[in-house]
Amino acid sequence: MDIAVSNDVNVSENFENSVDLIIQSRWLLPIVPRNSLLENQATVIKNGVIVDVCAITVASQRYQTKEVLQLDEHVLMPGLINLHTHAGMSLMRGLADDLPLMPWLEAHIWPAEAQLVSPSFVRDGTLIACAEMLAGGITTFNEMYFYPQAAAEASIQAGMRANLGLLVFEFSSNYASDAEDYIDKGTIARDQLKHEPLISFSFAPHAPYTVNDATFTQINMLGEQLNIGMHTHLHETKAEITHSEQAHGLRPLARLASLGLLNANTTFAHCVHLDDIEMQLLAEHGCHIAHCPSSNLKLASGIASITACAKHGINIGLGTDGAASNNRLDLFAEIRLAALLAKGQSGDATAISAHEALRMATINGAKALGMDDKIGSIEIGKLADLCAIKLSTINLQPCYDVASHLVYVAGRDNVSHVWVNGNLKYHKPNSGDAVFSNIEPQELTDIINKWQDKVAVFKANSHPVESNLL
Amino acid sequence: MDIAVSNDVNVSENFENSVDLIIQSRWLLPIVPRNSLLENQATVIKNGVIVDVCAITVASQRYQTKEVLQLDEHVLMPGLINLHTHAGMSLMRGLADDLPLMPWLEAHIWPAEAQLVSPSFVRDGTLIACAEMLAGGITTFNEMYFYPQAAAEASIQAGMRANLGLLVFEFSSNYASDAEDYIDKGTIARDQLKHEPLISFSFAPHAPYTVNDATFTQINMLGEQLNIGMHTHLHETKAEITHSEQAHGLRPLARLASLGLLNANTTFAHCVHLDDIEMQLLAEHGCHIAHCPSSNLKLASGIASITACAKHGINIGLGTDGAASNNRLDLFAEIRLAALLAKGQSGDATAISAHEALRMATINGAKALGMDDKIGSIEIGKLADLCAIKLSTINLQPCYDVASHLVYVAGRDNVSHVWVNGNLKYHKPNSGDAVFSNIEPQELTDIINKWQDKVAVFKANSHPVESNLL
Repeated sequence: MDIAVSNDVNVSENFENSVDLIIQSRWLLPIVPRNSLLENQATVIKNGVIVDVCAITVASQRYQTKEVLQLDEHVLMPGLINLHTHAGMSLMRGLADDLPLMPWLEAHIWPAEAQLVSPSFVRDGTLIACAEMLAGGITTFNEMYFYPQAAAEASIQAGMRANLGLLVFEFSSNYASDAEDYIDKGTIARDQLKHEPLISFSFAPHAPYTVNDATFTQINMLGEQLNIGMHTHLHETKAEITHSEQAHGLRPLARLASLGLLNANTTFAHCVHLDDIEMQLLAEHGCHIAHCPSSNLKLASGIASITACAKHGINIGLGTDGAASNNRLDLFAEIRLAALLAKGQSGDATAISAHEALRMATINGAKALGMDDKIGSIEIGKLADLCAIKLSTINLQPCYDVASHLVYVAGRDNVSHVWVNGNLKYHKPNSGDAVFSNIEPQELTDIINKWQDKVAVFKANSHPVESNLL
Repeated sequence: MDIAVSNDVNVSENFENSVDLIIQSRWLLPIVPRNSLLENQATVIKNGVIVDVCAITVASQRYQTKEVLQLDEHVLMPGLINLHTHAGMSLMRGLADDLPLMPWLEAHIWPAEAQLVSPSFVRDGTLIACAEMLAGGITTFNEMYFYPQAAAEASIQAGMRANLGLLVFEFSSNYASDAEDYIDKGTIARDQLKHEPLISFSFAPHAPYTVNDATFTQINMLGEQLNIGMHTHLHETKAEITHSEQAHGLRPLARLASLGLLNANTTFAHCVHLDDIEMQLLAEHGCHIAHCPSSNLKLASGIASITACAKHGINIGLGTDGAASNNRLDLFAEIRLAALLAKGQSGDATAISAHEALRMATINGAKALGMDDKIGSIEIGKLADLCAIKLSTINLQPCYDVASHLVYVAGRDNVSHVWVNGNLKYHKPNSGDAVFSNIEPQELTDIINKWQDKVAVFKANSHPVESNLL
């Protein structure tokens, strides 16, 4: 067993050698530097921060620690970053399937939301989503839904990092009456929550087809004033593009460009349909893409040309989208699908290597959120948002390449430990039940029991086409 | 809670009302009749056969049973059928990734096989594969690899149903020297094993590009004499088609058709590239397709036009392919991917409904193997090859549509019980370790320890292209 060379640091005379936690892992996939995998490393954590990454033997000599965790059969990697989701929709998981985007939205999701959405619906749905995401190694999610305070309440309880989208539509909902009201409520939420350490914000105008020019312009100005970015759906379907050409004489991206909305604080979800010039435009302005392959397939939106986008130099992260259109909030599934789909679509089996797929789900997501100085890799000085994956399960054996196994073989069920800010938030012991540090199993059961029947009434006729081809 | 109407049977005066096992399940997805889901059903098993499916209350009055199993949070469905795999390749899982088919075969897999393949390699790899497949709800696999007796030994130990492909190449291997020798060895294996209740056979000429006309013709004649079907790779890549056009003046399928090889006992794996006339040809002859979406994406072979094939009336099952090109032997992943990919590729969100995807993995596979009178659905008179999926895990909540959840939400980690011939072969208790009835965990560990280092030497240089796009 080789002892890999550590990222050594000088221990200065003033260095305080008392730390909180040392995680000794058989393998360490730090994401930065690129394509690297270390063996038998100690990740040293103090006050929620990674203060050292070094050989296990070195750490044992160098530090006094409150706790040591030995992970002899595990790889430690940064916590995953879900760059596009609607956590509050979890209570509508599987409510309407096998339908295209617009009938799905207009005939099922929006009518259900009109009746159901409330602070308690969002809080409860987000807590279910946080439990699912944490158990799958996700430590940060980029959220877009109604009632951001309710989403914050759930994510703070779960102990996850959330970038909350301050949602804006032109049309009314239970949450707000018009664009002005959405923006007001969003800024109030932001003011109330801005000191929460796990919470950050984007403006989230829903999409070019639901938000008008004046509102986009106002959001842009306000975003600059408050120094918060933008998160919106873009070019998800061909129909959206056709509609924009008819209504505005421009494709949606060109319209947003004409309004001055493209910059390095902007994340566009989906981008299934982009031509070369549009990719170049996104690259030039440093915009980010949240690639959501499962959702794009499920709603028959298409397959995003991720390889071409990457060649243009666009930063691409990964999103699960919401549980109503995926129907799993499972970033391991998206990592695998993104890597596979890029190959199948481009005809190039080297497209999106295993390491690249893992970067998409970690450091690239952090860049999109403007948080790559804090999270997305295991580096000294970064916050200890981490997950451990147990590789000794028979389904993961044999193993000749840890990065490849994480992408093509492992699943979220192999996640054993998840930390946010150095605090253990989820743990699946070798035997016995998995444990969330801040969520009681009974609370999740109570939420399901509370909502299942209320939501189920919207299920009727959701399979208008029952196919019998096969 | 509704009690669904049962498939009632008349209890004749001579009916023996003593049975072996009654499985009481919250939901029952019988696959036949189509698109049906029953609630609170008893599946009654005697001598390995399903002798009744009826309401739980009815079964309690009607039968004396040795054992009752209550599955209050579970759906019971037929065991899954993996219609194309190379179980013996499991020890090469992840040996070479991010490579196209021919360099992957020629530079990595075939050289490794030339050194490694032996009866013990095949037996050990197949046992690893059986453990993985059983734990994922698979009860039958359609195998194609060297040393069928060794594969039989492992699958009989595991207690799985295996249709063994009697592999034929023109070139020599550790196993056989030339096509004649492969055929001889295959027929000997078949003679030795033909009375094994869990074992059946196909001839498995590897592919049109590795088997010549005379051999195909001989296999066809022999198959007719022995009444066993054929299983081969077909139209996996565009390169294969181009090569055939150059070498034979015909596309591979046309060449096989000209040799009289198309009939209802033939299963073609992959079929990524088919034109309309070819689909019609396959439909007319009653040939079957083993769709392997993960493998086709991973090797950048392309995306099979499953929706179009289904419209032509071709019977389509699902395969994992081998662990070296997938790298999971996980039919739940293939079910989900097949349903998603059909939508994304066709642009039709109603393409391959949840129920259709589940049929592909069960009754369609059984039809391809000529075993649909015995397995592939929960019907009276069929063999009790079954799997139970626990739906109460928080990741599967809430649940409004069980079939949709099985496809879009559930994973193999939600499988709780697997039976073959009415015998429990795998069980994951609510707490504690999963248990294989016929495989000790230590045996699996010993196999990995025996082979890991021997195989790893072939890993060198398997990532010739380390991409850094992202």
